[in-house]
Amino acid sequence: MSTVNCAILGATSYTGLELVRLLDKHQNARVTVVSSQTYAGQRLSDVFPVLKGVCDARLLSPQDAAGRAADVVCVFSCLPHAVSAQLLLPFIEKGIKTVDLSADFRLRDPSVYAQWYGGPHPRPELLGRAVFGMPEQYRDAISQADIVANPGCYPTSVLLPLLPLLKAPGTELTAIIADSKSGVSGAGRSLKLASHFVEANENLSAYGVGRAHRHVPEMEQELSAAAGGPVTLTFVPHLVPVNRGILSTLYISTNRSARECGEIVGAAYAGEPFVRVRSGDDLPKLADVCHTNYCDIAFAGGDSGMPVVAVSAIDNLVKGASGQAIQNMNVMFGFDETMGLS
Amino acid sequence: MSTVNCAILGATSYTGLELVRLLDKHQNARVTVVSSQTYAGQRLSDVFPVLKGVCDARLLSPQDAAGRAADVVCVFSCLPHAVSAQLLLPFIEKGIKTVDLSADFRLRDPSVYAQWYGGPHPRPELLGRAVFGMPEQYRDAISQADIVANPGCYPTSVLLPLLPLLKAPGTELTAIIADSKSGVSGAGRSLKLASHFVEANENLSAYGVGRAHRHVPEMEQELSAAAGGPVTLTFVPHLVPVNRGILSTLYISTNRSARECGEIVGAAYAGEPFVRVRSGDDLPKLADVCHTNYCDIAFAGGDSGMPVVAVSAIDNLVKGASGQAIQNMNVMFGFDETMGLS
Amino acid sequence: MSTVNCAILGATSYTGLELVRLLDKHQNARVTVVSSQTYAGQRLSDVFPVLKGVCDARLLSPQDAAGRAADVVCVFSCLPHAVSAQLLLPFIEKGIKTVDLSADFRLRDPSVYAQWYGGPHPRPELLGRAVFGMPEQYRDAISQADIVANPGCYPTSVLLPLLPLLKAPGTELTAIIADSKSGVSGAGRSLKLASHFVEANENLSAYGVGRAHRHVPEMEQELSAAAGGPVTLTFVPHLVPVNRGILSTLYISTNRSARECGEIVGAAYAGEPFVRVRSGDDLPKLADVCHTNYCDIAFAGGDSGMPVVAVSAIDNLVKGASGQAIQNMNVMFGFDETMGLS
Amino acid sequence: MSTVNCAILGATSYTGLELVRLLDKHQNARVTVVSSQTYAGQRLSDVFPVLKGVCDARLLSPQDAAGRAADVVCVFSCLPHAVSAQLLLPFIEKGIKTVDLSADFRLRDPSVYAQWYGGPHPRPELLGRAVFGMPEQYRDAISQADIVANPGCYPTSVLLPLLPLLKAPGTELTAIIADSKSGVSGAGRSLKLASHFVEANENLSAYGVGRAHRHVPEMEQELSAAAGGPVTLTFVPHLVPVNRGILSTLYISTNRSARECGEIVGAAYAGEPFVRVRSGDDLPKLADVCHTNYCDIAFAGGDSGMPVVAVSAIDNLVKGASGQAIQNMNVMFGFDETMGLS
Repeated sequence: MSTVNCAILGATSYTGLELVRLLDKHQNARVTVVSSQTYAGQRLSDVFPVLKGVCDARLLSPQDAAGRAADVVCVFSCLPHAVSAQLLLPFIEKGIKTVDLSADFRLRDPSVYAQWYGGPHPRPELLGRAVFGMPEQYRDAISQADIVANPGCYPTSVLLPLLPLLKAPGTELTAIIADSKSGVSGAGRSLKLASHFVEANENLSAYGVGRAHRHVPEMEQELSAAAGGPVTLTFVPHLVPVNRGILSTLYISTNRSARECGEIVGAAYAGEPFVRVRSGDDLPKLADVCHTNYCDIAFAGGDSGMPVVAVSAIDNLVKGASGQAIQNMNVMFGFDETMGLS
Repeated sequence: MSTVNCAILGATSYTGLELVRLLDKHQNARVTVVSSQTYAGQRLSDVFPVLKGVCDARLLSPQDAAGRAADVVCVFSCLPHAVSAQLLLPFIEKGIKTVDLSADFRLRDPSVYAQWYGGPHPRPELLGRAVFGMPEQYRDAISQADIVANPGCYPTSVLLPLLPLLKAPGTELTAIIADSKSGVSGAGRSLKLASHFVEANENLSAYGVGRAHRHVPEMEQELSAAAGGPVTLTFVPHLVPVNRGILSTLYISTNRSARECGEIVGAAYAGEPFVRVRSGDDLPKLADVCHTNYCDIAFAGGDSGMPVVAVSAIDNLVKGASGQAIQNMNVMFGFDETMGLS
Repeated sequence: MSTVNCAILGATSYTGLELVRLLDKHQNARVTVVSSQTYAGQRLSDVFPVLKGVCDARLLSPQDAAGRAADVVCVFSCLPHAVSAQLLLPFIEKGIKTVDLSADFRLRDPSVYAQWYGGPHPRPELLGRAVFGMPEQYRDAISQADIVANPGCYPTSVLLPLLPLLKAPGTELTAIIADSKSGVSGAGRSLKLASHFVEANENLSAYGVGRAHRHVPEMEQELSAAAGGPVTLTFVPHLVPVNRGILSTLYISTNRSARECGEIVGAAYAGEPFVRVRSGDDLPKLADVCHTNYCDIAFAGGDSGMPVVAVSAIDNLVKGASGQAIQNMNVMFGFDETMGLS
Repeated sequence: MSTVNCAILGATSYTGLELVRLLDKHQNARVTVVSSQTYAGQRLSDVFPVLKGVCDARLLSPQDAAGRAADVVCVFSCLPHAVSAQLLLPFIEKGIKTVDLSADFRLRDPSVYAQWYGGPHPRPELLGRAVFGMPEQYRDAISQADIVANPGCYPTSVLLPLLPLLKAPGTELTAIIADSKSGVSGAGRSLKLASHFVEANENLSAYGVGRAHRHVPEMEQELSAAAGGPVTLTFVPHLVPVNRGILSTLYISTNRSARECGEIVGAAYAGEPFVRVRSGDDLPKLADVCHTNYCDIAFAGGDSGMPVVAVSAIDNLVKGASGQAIQNMNVMFGFDETMGLS
């Protein structure tokens, strides 16, 4: 199998760093182009000294990176939304397989995108070609796709426990609440007061309560698709003083017991390499998944007519971003899906 | 006003340390007796060097401390449940005003105590004399009481936002979910793997899902008392890598909007020195309350028939334990309620 | 005693916040003017919600604050160097007692200031009136001073263990190395990548190696003054992932044993309320001093002709900044030196 | 190349966990025997849920593990000293290649071992066969050895910058001070108050000042071997609230400049895959090496006759323990030295 040459746009983000570190261990891929608006001209290992001797490639400007499109067969974008679709275009137009870690290709309805992302979609005509990059749900479509929209970190942790329940015959879900807790890398590498060490450390806060976070439409789109009808949810994200990881605690009003939920979801993911369904006595925690591509899930509670509780854990930079992006690349190129990730 | 001489049983716990530090700033009280089973004979400042020059008193054994009961007019217990009621007895029998930070006097029904705490209550005949030590609810009774049961840390953060709603005419609460996140000091100073630095740091976990935690009956007792009928709740505590603080995110199915909830609760606490009700745009966070006796509360969400979200924050060692204990002492002795706490 | 009305310039810094919190507990002082260039017009408690109900004063622009000079009798500056001297001028000219937490009045020689701070001193003619605000060394002069230069955080932790040794007859110090470790609040509240949570957390770094840090001339000035001749030192500061605190490990080539050093320094500070000299078996740690105005010191090592090791610990925001500033105010106004700080 | 079957004794330690995770990615090795006194009978993935699906092997008692000696060709011990040599014996006697992560085979002189480790060496006759497992110094000997003594974590970080200087002709080192800062995993997984989250978090402390730590004789042995004569050092370890990593700041009195030191050490490690010598402007930090097998080194300072400052950084669990152990295995078996570690 010949080696896949990869470009990473926005390589100086935390997801970019994680992509480079993971691809360094991938037998069939290598990073040949890295770009950055801010740090163009510097070596990637000057920005991230941990990469010295691992990836000393020089960062290209976005324009120069576009000029190298013909030299790669796969492109990852770690850019912010809107910018991402624009700068991916030269690659998409050349038919280069694309994994976009931004939100630009996740929402199928351009009017929903416009409502949540503050303006019209930069390339609405491409939305029909994009596949939501959750291999556990869309493996076949991903294997045929040229554009894969890598899911958001919160949606990955919320959707994986819920989708099999929504698809299960006879299972009714009448209300869903997701209380999610994320590490600070989820807020990115841009400087902001909430991510300042002294502000975030020894602190804990909720934000974007209810249906205010941009990941809500993405979650509701996929929940509704699985249910075959409209599903809404209450979502409260929290910022937790750890570098990595998302723990989501889900409260599910359902006619199933916690044990039945565990069985349904366990069966659905029986052959999946990166989902581990555990018994309710043995709840997932961040340390069990950090630096891995696993999503751990367990169901508990639900006695006396109360909501069933699901707990899921992922590393937001791996299964919630760069690891899942590589998993998608593996599916797109027909590689063993665990390559570079086990 | 003459100075109140205080005894602290179990002074080498984190709540004991916090009590000593707070009482050091109290104009009308001083600590004259400190006890510890484990460290008897050592100075308290040998166990906690931060106290050198602040409190160098020698730790008495519980037996020796009991012998000093006549020398104090107020006793605080930071002991574990069951042990606490036993060792407080010599003080209670002498009529010394008692603030018990353990669970021993919180549950009015001894059969509920027996069910949740693994055995019969050591002194059931005393339960009728004890008052639940939440001044915002029971100020008058506390001012007359000899035995005050200081509330649990989780219950303090969950009850304060809910009780005024349950009491408000025309307000219906049909389901309550409390997703609480606690710092590690809540698990005490006893060594256990979950509190080992490398296990707790960069980690996050749920435990005791549903109705499994010992604070559930205490919360349901007080919720039901406020509602005038049985109220149940779903409760999931989480362990967060910070030293101090509890943030509770409550999901409330109600006929009131978030704004109405904020107004009801704001009005109920209008004169309270230690409850700050904020607008929903300005959510409480741990850093706003740590090292203070405040409970901050805000309501948000609740659109389109979804649950209203309440967020509350306290310092588990202050308003959730030792600060509230001093607030109770102030009420019991007729001092300004904020003395030593502002 | 009438209450001292205080102004705080640069109140939205971490040292400003700490000043407000400490002065809130001071019986003889109150904060009546707070200023901020960035947040002028907002309430201080909007910037720091922890202060809601504690200090809801509105932030003035520096210009407006200057116009209020006649209303205060004490001014604290938490501003950056150069700006600080400029904005303090209207207060100094009115003879208002001034505690400057910046470096502007610490160096007696304006040419040294110019060399280290990138330009000429804004008001060199005032340097002769300023006193270095370390009460343990300059108490009498501070009590007479109108301008007190509050020492830097690193210098406080390095100087306190060393000055008594340099003054002790027959004690020779031939080489001094200071390896200091500081919490992130020492880098201030301005956003920078090194203080970004994900960068600082789970990390540790040295910076400004050797004689590169701006606190070096300040330390050498005071070491030399104590020794009666030029003293130089090697200084390496480190950034540690905690919010507060400085631990300095000093390596001292001397003709004294660790025990003798401890005795000399212990005797020198015998009556000091905020210096605790401990035995070498019982080394200071950050947790012993955080949220206090103490400096803890111990001496150990030094066997077989090796350097004696001193370890000192302070809270950089308290004894290293705002606590010491209040201690200086207490001395300047003739209050009990521990007022608001015990 | 046939696969090397490995046993890990004491697999439920942090170094055991790291070994299993690293060997999972090693192409030529697999873990077939894991032992634990405490957890015998459980699965390793029950103790460390992160290993579910990665290593679900059942933990054997030490006795049962010894009975499986014939099934492996390489054994790693993560046991405490004294126990380690005893339990390795059945493997050593069968000629199985042994990497001991404990201190039992590091000191060549059994009387030094007895002095520092509280009793006579359990198998002094084996000391002559053991090689100190630092490939950068002893690669050839390791390739021939049956017993490799994996270096201590602190010694690895202190020795790597110093040994080339001690060997360089014309370079004189007259005094060495090592101020080392370690993450809490270095203290192991056994419960102790200093490693309790609330005690270690937001804290920082020195311990074992001077020549008190057990790693001192190991460092002095290797420094002296490199220098061809006795070398002593002053060593102060510190505990820092991070999970992983050691940063050592070394103060070296020498006739070389920092730049010369950097050149000498850079040249010595020019071909080394796991040592990165950086310029003094670009000081190593923990984040650059954590989760890697690198040791990063830089030299700075040293002006005006002051000591040269070296800063080195390693991950204590990788280059300071399990990574270096695998590097040693690679050398012993003739594999590419970076296998499983790049």
